[in-house]
Amino acid sequence: MLPRHVQIELENLLGSANVIFQSDKLKAYDCDAYVAEKAMPRAVVFPQSTEQVASIVKIFNREQIPFLPRGAGTGLSGGATPFAGEVVISLVKMDRLLHVDFENHRAIVQPGFVNLVLSRQIAHRGFYYAPDPSSQSVCTIGGNVAENSGGSHCLKYGVTSNHVVALTLVTPTGEIVTLGQVHGDVLGYDLLGVMVGSEGTLGIVTEITVKILKKPESVETVLAYFHTVADASDTVSDLIAHGVLPAAVEMMDQLMMQAVDKSVYHVGYPPEIAAVLLIEVDGLQAGVEDMAQRVLDICCRHNVHSVRRAVNEEERKLWWSSRKMAFPAVGRISPDYMVQDGVIPRTRLTEILARIADLSHEYGLRVANVFHAGDGNLHPLICYDGRIPEQLAKAMDLGRKILELCVEMGGSITGEHGVGIEKIEQMKVQFSSVDLQWQERLRRVFNPADLCNSGKLIPRPARCAEFRQIQTMVEKYAAAFQETV
Amino acid sequence: MLPRHVQIELENLLGSANVIFQSDKLKAYDCDAYVAEKAMPRAVVFPQSTEQVASIVKIFNREQIPFLPRGAGTGLSGGATPFAGEVVISLVKMDRLLHVDFENHRAIVQPGFVNLVLSRQIAHRGFYYAPDPSSQSVCTIGGNVAENSGGSHCLKYGVTSNHVVALTLVTPTGEIVTLGQVHGDVLGYDLLGVMVGSEGTLGIVTEITVKILKKPESVETVLAYFHTVADASDTVSDLIAHGVLPAAVEMMDQLMMQAVDKSVYHVGYPPEIAAVLLIEVDGLQAGVEDMAQRVLDICCRHNVHSVRRAVNEEERKLWWSSRKMAFPAVGRISPDYMVQDGVIPRTRLTEILARIADLSHEYGLRVANVFHAGDGNLHPLICYDGRIPEQLAKAMDLGRKILELCVEMGGSITGEHGVGIEKIEQMKVQFSSVDLQWQERLRRVFNPADLCNSGKLIPRPARCAEFRQIQTMVEKYAAAFQETV
Repeated sequence: MLPRHVQIELENLLGSANVIFQSDKLKAYDCDAYVAEKAMPRAVVFPQSTEQVASIVKIFNREQIPFLPRGAGTGLSGGATPFAGEVVISLVKMDRLLHVDFENHRAIVQPGFVNLVLSRQIAHRGFYYAPDPSSQSVCTIGGNVAENSGGSHCLKYGVTSNHVVALTLVTPTGEIVTLGQVHGDVLGYDLLGVMVGSEGTLGIVTEITVKILKKPESVETVLAYFHTVADASDTVSDLIAHGVLPAAVEMMDQLMMQAVDKSVYHVGYPPEIAAVLLIEVDGLQAGVEDMAQRVLDICCRHNVHSVRRAVNEEERKLWWSSRKMAFPAVGRISPDYMVQDGVIPRTRLTEILARIADLSHEYGLRVANVFHAGDGNLHPLICYDGRIPEQLAKAMDLGRKILELCVEMGGSITGEHGVGIEKIEQMKVQFSSVDLQWQERLRRVFNPADLCNSGKLIPRPARCAEFRQIQTMVEKYAAAFQETV
Repeated sequence: MLPRHVQIELENLLGSANVIFQSDKLKAYDCDAYVAEKAMPRAVVFPQSTEQVASIVKIFNREQIPFLPRGAGTGLSGGATPFAGEVVISLVKMDRLLHVDFENHRAIVQPGFVNLVLSRQIAHRGFYYAPDPSSQSVCTIGGNVAENSGGSHCLKYGVTSNHVVALTLVTPTGEIVTLGQVHGDVLGYDLLGVMVGSEGTLGIVTEITVKILKKPESVETVLAYFHTVADASDTVSDLIAHGVLPAAVEMMDQLMMQAVDKSVYHVGYPPEIAAVLLIEVDGLQAGVEDMAQRVLDICCRHNVHSVRRAVNEEERKLWWSSRKMAFPAVGRISPDYMVQDGVIPRTRLTEILARIADLSHEYGLRVANVFHAGDGNLHPLICYDGRIPEQLAKAMDLGRKILELCVEMGGSITGEHGVGIEKIEQMKVQFSSVDLQWQERLRRVFNPADLCNSGKLIPRPARCAEFRQIQTMVEKYAAAFQETV
């Protein structure tokens, strides 16, 4: 609970419709889409301007109350779950499109603006916003910035950091700063780049300037079935080796296909195939024709079971829906499931899938695989039954094993879902303690009182005494800077 | 001069062939390619390994001796000029290609490895390294990382930060850290992104992992002459608006064309034209054919004087040499010149050129313009005569005015040449004091003793007392961290 005088101050500032203090209503904010661990916030507030965000952050600093930002709550690693009893600063009421400059390909949105709505609102002029996480119909661009979200088309178009050019940020101490350049590359230190993917630990983004792109003139979508995972993987490597850069290359394994075919997006995958590739090429008409033909040719060189282009937009949409609904579809073959997210060098796809199959047998838990094959970004979905007590723990352990395997193969523990609380221990597998200390130093500069989404992303120094020593120094350091403003 | 015991220690560590202490030999290191201001280093050292760099940085920390890294010295903003009498750590002897992974499109180089040599050494497998600054035949990839160098083809392929995936760094305190991910996107805070473009102020990069790309199957190069700058500018906007993303769009004005036609790369630009566009499209054969045709069509819609494709590789190379040698060619029409580097929204090209022409008249100094038109990145070359005392100061003042104009138009004070010492005052035009303080805080975390290329990039806090106060705090802060290692 918040002290009564703080409650009153927040109500006066935001209006009573924009604050939640009652515990029954707070329940909805006890986790994001990472549901394995939950915690109640001490309040939820809904600011509607940069200035309001700055004001409430200053109140929380004065009162030493922890806080964290939240978008649509679709994050998969617990980044918006208030484990320290934070006040949740929900940004869903800051959901306006502030400005579009079609000539210079820029749009400015508030953080609560929904990803797909941007593409819809600029479509009449032939534009779209490229990053397309599977949750794009509900997730917010502010959340995308926090997690540096990717999507199916980031093979060609890059992740969120490639599309955000400037930010307005309320720092964890309540200052308003602007980062990045609307036109031209970053100059000075790339604080914009630091902020994108910082998972809400370095402040609260309140305005986002993004690049918008012209829609490609032509798109061709190819679906290819393979008897073996190795053939599908080799096809992906061969495409890239031949200079074909598809907009997207998605892969699903047999169990995943069974799951999605049970959903409303029934494609009818043949039961005998081991892997499917969904390949999309886009660009100017003539080039796309040629590229699509090459994709077909290269598939044929790798013992493809069958391959064809989408005959119309309707079929293309069905194929994409089948892919994009893969995560929830697993609910049709298992009472519970856990999504993982790791990266490996693209050339080791076959190998890691074999190792995951071994682990699956060892743990007695089925694993369905769907991935952005072009980027080597895996999403193993571990099936378990939460009603059997030890299964959740087993599933979590299996997930950790898979991530450690990714690191061992020269990859990383997250492609696009973030670290949050879920993978914070694996950060120690990925990084040396010296590397992590540099990360922690950076956090402390921006977040000196450690009130802003503390405990996420970077594992903390091992011993409490050191931690307090650092904290004291950083507070003095921050105070010295405050005086120079 | 260095204390004798430090000289001996450095000689023992590096060998006497790898240290320079004599002032006559130090002269060669008193500036980089920004020649307007010079300063003598107290020594120059040539380490050959990461461990040697870490050892010498630790010596300099112990002795409180300032130092800075230097590549080929082609930087245009004075970033490698030792204004604080730094020891110059030359990285030219760390010039090896350490590893190439063709399958996964990665190469690892030492910082002194020359940009163009990388493309040459991987060409036999059909690969190249994309960032192509005009100085690429001599500049080092380490220097490119420091300056986040661009180049003619960064319109389509992005600048250095889009191609560097991991770094080994010796921090300003002598620790060795690794940043970034060889495979997969950055996780944790993007310290890699902070390092790229930090102009040697946050440490010394000793290994660089970069992406290498497959050479495009086909390239078409178009040269288009225009009667007016406005027509050329409109053509550029129209290309992008029609979804044509050329690999490069370069523009030169009349005075610039006169200069390059006096060089060995004589194209024979018609005297009556006001602007030339050099447009290159690349990709798969069929797509490129179509794109080149569209480029011709769009040029024709904007009153082009004449336009044609390069008939062969020889002609293409001549056109590119004419463009890439534009800077030195200005030496043929003026005893001295100063290069500027600003960015504006692409749609304001015509407007800024008119304003630059006005300023040119006002100052009585000719300005030749060459630019990466697709990115809105201008390079005005201000002609002056250094033998006339006040002309250098006038030229510098005119340069500053142009940069301030770029900021006023919504752009920035550097596209790719960096801030260094040259533009440090303009940083105050670009950023608010609060924004700059955040930059300074970041610098202090990495560079607590302020020995590493101090005085570059970020203007310092205004008053000495504050500066010392911050410094004391940061030193304590750093000490606390050291104890936690």
